[in-house]
Amino acid sequence: MTAIDHLGIAVSKLEEALPFWCDLLGMELAGIEVVASEKVRVAILRPKGDAQAARVELLEPTAPDSPIARHLEKRGPGLHHVAMKVDDIAARMVALAAAGKPALEATPRVGAGGCMVAFLHPKLAGGVLLELSQPPAGGARH
Amino acid sequence: MTAIDHLGIAVSKLEEALPFWCDLLGMELAGIEVVASEKVRVAILRPKGDAQAARVELLEPTAPDSPIARHLEKRGPGLHHVAMKVDDIAARMVALAAAGKPALEATPRVGAGGCMVAFLHPKLAGGVLLELSQPPAGGARH
Repeated sequence: MTAIDHLGIAVSKLEEALPFWCDLLGMELAGIEVVASEKVRVAILRPKGDAQAARVELLEPTAPDSPIARHLEKRGPGLHHVAMKVDDIAARMVALAAAGKPALEATPRVGAGGCMVAFLHPKLAGGVLLELSQPPAGGARH
Repeated sequence: MTAIDHLGIAVSKLEEALPFWCDLLGMELAGIEVVASEKVRVAILRPKGDAQAARVELLEPTAPDSPIARHLEKRGPGLHHVAMKVDDIAARMVALAAAGKPALEATPRVGAGGCMVAFLHPKLAGGVLLELSQPPAGGARH
């Protein structure tokens, strides 16, 4: 089954963005983690009490060469990527490549929470930076 | 409870965009409808067999002055808005206005499927065009 896993939103400072999402809109802050490989600090937001629902992830750069720092420079804060949860990421990548849409990675890599992930360039995905994410065997990420 | 209701993605032609989302990624096409008030044709995509999950909505303009036509002209295809499902849209709008973030509409209006909806300008919502959507009493939209 393919579903929206999360929406990644670029922000300058998590602590400045969180009151809007939590206090005014009513999302629950499930945690904040640093993903060193992506040079981001991530605030994970979900509907209260629903660990399986699609999440909002606020992304703050931790270094000037973070992909999120570049996004903020070029476009300002806002939507950065969409992650889709898939059952078999390797099979999806083969089918995508066969359709002329190869992922940026030749093979899936390990992302946050033990997920296997790969990205599709926006030019190949209707203008959307698309992350494919296969949860680790035995459970959801959060 | 506040949750992601759907992601709106601007496309030039639904029929050209659908094979990517359905055949290659594995989403299910739940239906296509015209929303005359927004001047769009909408393809509703969801995880197979899960009518409650967050949806992807592909948006094709039906007129040159459609908001989606303007988005395509300025930015090309890609992410257009995020809709958040809320329990009490009127109360959320009051709280947002009190925090200096009034919706574009003074009061919620009736959107597709009988939802009550209102939009927040991206400048007030961290760069995201945000739709608030309260499902009609008695059931989900689709």
